[in-house]
Amino acid sequence: MERSLIESIASELRARGSRVVRGIGDDAAVVRARPICVTSVDTVVEGVHFRLGDPSLDFSDIGWRALAGALSDLAAMGAEAGEAYIALGVPSHVGERHALELMRGAEQLAAITGTTIAGGDVAGAPALFASVTVVGWAESEDELVGRDGARAGDLIGVTGRLGGRRRRRAPRLREGRALAAAGAHAMIDLSDGLATDAEHLASASGVHLRIDLTALPLDDGVAQAAAKLRVPPWRGAAEHGEDYELCFCLSSDARAHAEQALREISDDRTGSDGAEDDGAGITWVGRVEAGDPGVSFSDERGADVRLEGFEHRW
Amino acid sequence: MERSLIESIASELRARGSRVVRGIGDDAAVVRARPICVTSVDTVVEGVHFRLGDPSLDFSDIGWRALAGALSDLAAMGAEAGEAYIALGVPSHVGERHALELMRGAEQLAAITGTTIAGGDVAGAPALFASVTVVGWAESEDELVGRDGARAGDLIGVTGRLGGRRRRRAPRLREGRALAAAGAHAMIDLSDGLATDAEHLASASGVHLRIDLTALPLDDGVAQAAAKLRVPPWRGAAEHGEDYELCFCLSSDARAHAEQALREISDDRTGSDGAEDDGAGITWVGRVEAGDPGVSFSDERGADVRLEGFEHRW
Repeated sequence: MERSLIESIASELRARGSRVVRGIGDDAAVVRARPICVTSVDTVVEGVHFRLGDPSLDFSDIGWRALAGALSDLAAMGAEAGEAYIALGVPSHVGERHALELMRGAEQLAAITGTTIAGGDVAGAPALFASVTVVGWAESEDELVGRDGARAGDLIGVTGRLGGRRRRRAPRLREGRALAAAGAHAMIDLSDGLATDAEHLASASGVHLRIDLTALPLDDGVAQAAAKLRVPPWRGAAEHGEDYELCFCLSSDARAHAEQALREISDDRTGSDGAEDDGAGITWVGRVEAGDPGVSFSDERGADVRLEGFEHRW
Repeated sequence: MERSLIESIASELRARGSRVVRGIGDDAAVVRARPICVTSVDTVVEGVHFRLGDPSLDFSDIGWRALAGALSDLAAMGAEAGEAYIALGVPSHVGERHALELMRGAEQLAAITGTTIAGGDVAGAPALFASVTVVGWAESEDELVGRDGARAGDLIGVTGRLGGRRRRRAPRLREGRALAAAGAHAMIDLSDGLATDAEHLASASGVHLRIDLTALPLDDGVAQAAAKLRVPPWRGAAEHGEDYELCFCLSSDARAHAEQALREISDDRTGSDGAEDDGAGITWVGRVEAGDPGVSFSDERGADVRLEGFEHRW
């Protein structure tokens, strides 16, 4: 199976830009580098992150989302997306046609993000998995933002709207670069949900985040679903992950600049790129304080709320 | 499991050289690049490439060999090893301690090859797998060698000795760079065995390779095993894969230069680096000819021999 599948995959993939010197077909891919290389890996496994036969998820969605999860990490650093390398484990119950559909879904997202899928690997496996390594680029370290730079007094912002269940979201690559350029001190993508990821940022930066749950921007359907469940609407927005939205901290001096930059990106989106996206404005949701590293989430009454972590299951 | 395992893994890993600016712990790893980036992916899966409980294979061997397979692709390009990113699928029947042992095996090979394991991913999975992405570097495209440059008249060489079953081989990174610098026109690593990989090289280069099986350098035990099975000794050497040796083509003018370069590397090896290695001299095994792309293997009587492909099962 492997060779004919690799050939079918290779025939579906397109190189973007002029970085890739050698793609699939040699021992390794060869790419013209820029000075700083930014790399992240994201793996999804059948039975753990998704189930086959789920009517809301076809094979191309799995490929799209596997790549989106990895690219979202580049977005959170403010890097430009470059290449992706996808290792597929293909069980006999999936077969070549569906594996190819998965890769087509990844290629669709690669196309709208300017990414080249430049290599990978195909192996037999007892369950379907896709492990995606993405490589992004920057001109210098100063262009990038880690999780660890938040400072007392910073504003806390999030992009877009949280808690929704849209199938095909695009990672916030342009927004990430714009926020980095606007002077964000720290940034993280909300792959695990705000409840968890804000803790990661607070802990890496050694600061306390105070977040107003009632300020969270709600995606379509979140308020209705919460009303049905008789829970506050912010719960789904804070606890649900895989939004590919960004949470970031910057000084209030940089606020107007960041808002303007994201407005320009939003105006520029055509909405015709295959992603379900209505632009990513900024919502300000809290403040960074000195003190014990951690996060306080407050509700309508100003009371501290405990939130649940997010389980990655599509 | 995931977070504590990631922390345990991170505490075992060391950065090598000054390339890595940010390692494990942020959204992505950040590395200072050199002008040309060379990337390969290799995946091994329980039940497909190896079986747990095999007494000749412990978890650290699995990690070593998973990384070795990927680094061997960089060797075959003549690239310098840089970083590795390892995605682990860890089933409940393996557990954290054994996953950590696997990573220790990879780290041991990383140490002797100057590689930094700079990131990765840990996911639950129904079977153990490791998908390794390695990134190597070069100053320019001209330093690298593909599979596609062999020319009629070239000599065909292989490094080291073939067909052995030693557990911990090191990929031929220094040899690959030296052969590239000596002017190799085409190169491939023998991960699938000479029988298969020579075909890949011939097909990519559009040339015919004529290989004398009786000239193949035999690893320890290969002749004895062949005598027991009443097969010619070269069969095991040509059909067995995962040797991490290199097969390359170069003009006869470059022969002395290549031999001298590999002799210097061999003399320089201390043998104390954890790899089972006795140096990699060159053996000349054939000639490149014009004509239909493909390979002719001839035996003692000069007759054409059909060889079997290699199945990757440890």
